[in-house]
Amino acid sequence: MAADPRFFPQAGPQPLEAVLAASGAEVLGAPGERHFAGVAALAEAGPEQISFCDGPRHAAALAVTRAGAVLVPASLAARVPAGCLALVTRAPGLAYARLAALFHPPPPPNGRIHPSAVIGEGAVIGPGCEIGPYAVVGARAQLGEGCILGPHAVVGDAVELGPGCRIHAHASISHAICGAGVILHPGARVGQEGFGFLPTPEGHFVTMPQLGLVRLGDRVEIGANACVDRGSQGDTVLGPGTRLDNLVQVGHNVQTGRACVLVAQAGVSGSARLGDFVQIGGQAGVTGHLVVGDRARVGAQAGVMRDVPAGTDVLGSPAVPVKDAMRGFTIMKRLVEESRQSPEKRPEKGDE
Amino acid sequence: MAADPRFFPQAGPQPLEAVLAASGAEVLGAPGERHFAGVAALAEAGPEQISFCDGPRHAAALAVTRAGAVLVPASLAARVPAGCLALVTRAPGLAYARLAALFHPPPPPNGRIHPSAVIGEGAVIGPGCEIGPYAVVGARAQLGEGCILGPHAVVGDAVELGPGCRIHAHASISHAICGAGVILHPGARVGQEGFGFLPTPEGHFVTMPQLGLVRLGDRVEIGANACVDRGSQGDTVLGPGTRLDNLVQVGHNVQTGRACVLVAQAGVSGSARLGDFVQIGGQAGVTGHLVVGDRARVGAQAGVMRDVPAGTDVLGSPAVPVKDAMRGFTIMKRLVEESRQSPEKRPEKGDE
Amino acid sequence: MAADPRFFPQAGPQPLEAVLAASGAEVLGAPGERHFAGVAALAEAGPEQISFCDGPRHAAALAVTRAGAVLVPASLAARVPAGCLALVTRAPGLAYARLAALFHPPPPPNGRIHPSAVIGEGAVIGPGCEIGPYAVVGARAQLGEGCILGPHAVVGDAVELGPGCRIHAHASISHAICGAGVILHPGARVGQEGFGFLPTPEGHFVTMPQLGLVRLGDRVEIGANACVDRGSQGDTVLGPGTRLDNLVQVGHNVQTGRACVLVAQAGVSGSARLGDFVQIGGQAGVTGHLVVGDRARVGAQAGVMRDVPAGTDVLGSPAVPVKDAMRGFTIMKRLVEESRQSPEKRPEKGDE
Repeated sequence: MAADPRFFPQAGPQPLEAVLAASGAEVLGAPGERHFAGVAALAEAGPEQISFCDGPRHAAALAVTRAGAVLVPASLAARVPAGCLALVTRAPGLAYARLAALFHPPPPPNGRIHPSAVIGEGAVIGPGCEIGPYAVVGARAQLGEGCILGPHAVVGDAVELGPGCRIHAHASISHAICGAGVILHPGARVGQEGFGFLPTPEGHFVTMPQLGLVRLGDRVEIGANACVDRGSQGDTVLGPGTRLDNLVQVGHNVQTGRACVLVAQAGVSGSARLGDFVQIGGQAGVTGHLVVGDRARVGAQAGVMRDVPAGTDVLGSPAVPVKDAMRGFTIMKRLVEESRQSPEKRPEKGDE
Repeated sequence: MAADPRFFPQAGPQPLEAVLAASGAEVLGAPGERHFAGVAALAEAGPEQISFCDGPRHAAALAVTRAGAVLVPASLAARVPAGCLALVTRAPGLAYARLAALFHPPPPPNGRIHPSAVIGEGAVIGPGCEIGPYAVVGARAQLGEGCILGPHAVVGDAVELGPGCRIHAHASISHAICGAGVILHPGARVGQEGFGFLPTPEGHFVTMPQLGLVRLGDRVEIGANACVDRGSQGDTVLGPGTRLDNLVQVGHNVQTGRACVLVAQAGVSGSARLGDFVQIGGQAGVTGHLVVGDRARVGAQAGVMRDVPAGTDVLGSPAVPVKDAMRGFTIMKRLVEESRQSPEKRPEKGDE
Repeated sequence: MAADPRFFPQAGPQPLEAVLAASGAEVLGAPGERHFAGVAALAEAGPEQISFCDGPRHAAALAVTRAGAVLVPASLAARVPAGCLALVTRAPGLAYARLAALFHPPPPPNGRIHPSAVIGEGAVIGPGCEIGPYAVVGARAQLGEGCILGPHAVVGDAVELGPGCRIHAHASISHAICGAGVILHPGARVGQEGFGFLPTPEGHFVTMPQLGLVRLGDRVEIGANACVDRGSQGDTVLGPGTRLDNLVQVGHNVQTGRACVLVAQAGVSGSARLGDFVQIGGQAGVTGHLVVGDRARVGAQAGVMRDVPAGTDVLGSPAVPVKDAMRGFTIMKRLVEESRQSPEKRPEKGDE
């Protein structure tokens, strides 16, 4: 299905040269001058559109596609049907993402500050920024070139945004310093007070003032309604390229390396440290103060209660190496099957 | 306890005929002309109020109620105390909900557009809409008759809302087409970019442009701070009557049938498909690309890692049929009891 | 690391007497007149700063600190290095929190109502309140003395806030009555409709009107993007001092005692009752209608499916007493180890 032009304006048609330049693919044969109107899935693309096929499991769809061109790995080039151009690349999915962005580039900042926006004293707005209706920029905040603030976005006092940041509708950020190209999706919360307090002898709680910041590296993305608390002492730090999905929670003083991925509803408790390229599955949790090493992967719903060595995949709650978790599931399955078959072993009451 | 009139204005008193018409119940005996002021629980209702009793477990409260009338199934009609009208219906709870709405109808749209609202170029606002302070309606958006936008609601460019939709305070919706009577509770996020990207050989991530929409069927409700991402290719679709509780996550390209129920903090990963009348318990998760059949029920905190056949109840992480999950819990309980009793079996270190 | 003065204005320097008064500590020796500039961690504090050490595990850092003074328990007073004042107190962490607040008091309300704020008819704004840009206060709402509403905060019709409440950016509250010093962090949702509805014979859902309120006791705090639904009949009640972390869900008619703590992403289903000082770990869930007794503690990711007696610690899903949960984990670990070692016991397919 082609993208609905009411929602996704199209930058096209694009000549084959632009397609090759953006995708990094090479064309087989000598197709001459061609133009394309957009991208679409194999089954839906027409002669004006480009699609992709990244493996043999889609070869059947490839054989019957009506697409004008298909991004394929070299191993599939021979299976591109007649009349369809083979655009050969090592990473068809990646090349497709780049082509999709060629035809549907994210709307650039319009360079206008809506008259209803409130800009605090001493704030510095870089050239070419777009500031939407009812956005609020605090005193002394600094926005780099070409930032976009959506409607109702709130940027707190003294916050620094690097060039090309996008703060979508209803997102708020305070006590934070951001690199270039940081994106906060709608309703994301960055820089609010962390969850720190101490009990008095009388049973009251006294808040520990949270005196650190949030530092977001270049190209960090924070999902819709996700939360990143500022540090208590020292800072909460998300390394460059790190991406948080919706509704993720990051506690105070957490630190991640570069290009970590936290899937929806995952949570990382205070002062945990993640290395580079760590992946945390959906609804998984990491206990505070732990260390998760480089390229470790934490499965969905896992509960990490110990350090995870670099390169290790863990699963389960409490989380253990994936192979052990799988063994455990299989053992339980066998025990359940045995209890179902042998009446003397049948549990007397299934009461839990 | 009667509803606090400062917060819940009352449409009453109502004559018995209106009560019978709204509830679909039949009155026993010939009560003559009566009026009622509202609804309340059995233990708190007075002679001006109507209550309900849906089963024998509340029969004790029924026996001593001071309510003026009680909705009951036929089987309990004889146990309604003297002086209290028996309103007989097959579904007393449902009838009570309808009566509560008779006395406390959701406030209708006031037909006013607050002067601070920002309406984009080419937007079409249906007759009788209410648009609250600081609401923002994008260019070319279309609102059906009698919609309500709360304070700070944001409706994106080209979004279509059917008649009678309600977008509560701080909710945002973009890239979406909605049927009639759709409700977004405060802070709900609909239509933002899904979580899709590909790694480059250098370890950067490139966003896959998310070029699909969200389609919400008639009467779909999205809970407070819940998130529904738009499709990547193709659309994210929630069938008519589907209800999401607070803080639920729905990934890109998820599709549900009609009248599905997703309880608070549940998550459904990208491209999963749910049939009709599927129920997902609180904090449960469904892995991407799976199929959950009609009327299947997923228990709280379950982790669905395989397709679930229609009509099946599953529980546990990984999720298995409920009976097997229960057996498993019982087996673990027995093993724990045994280890507690026999010292030679006692684990040496309780270290995990 | 000292707090960044761009984000955390400092109220200082402070004389030793003020430090002693605020912290409740006693100074060893006769230091004469001294002044301090702020607080910092042991490893980072300089001669103008005060730090704390609450146990022997930090004694090494204590031995080499350059801090001008350190809060310590009496047992560590002798280990405070020469040139550094020993400030003796039974609870160094608590005393430190109070000192941090002495040097960095939360900014007081500025007493100004931003001209863009919308104040409903009949609303009563107490003396000294601060109301930020684009905040909306409903008709007949009442704000006590010295409340702060952040940018875009929305307070619904007839809502009552006691003195000193803070409603941060983008938070919304309706159908609620709050004590003194209540704090809603950014994006918190309080008072929206709970998740209650009944199926019709035709498979539609009919909403049960939610006619109760939310009552928040003194000093209750609701984390960023957390949700507290109003009661269905009767009220949702959070006892004085109760604190909810980010993204927590509290269903309709839940009641808690005083000083409960719900860690991030925890969920409590409708009508559950928590006693005083209950702690619910991150991502844990409590089934509806259950009772969790005073001082019970529910571990992270636990799934409470039965009442929890007072003073009991539970863990696991389904939750069991912590010792049993630990035993269970150890048993599973041993079973996995055995299956790894004995080939005849090896599971044939690790297929779950």
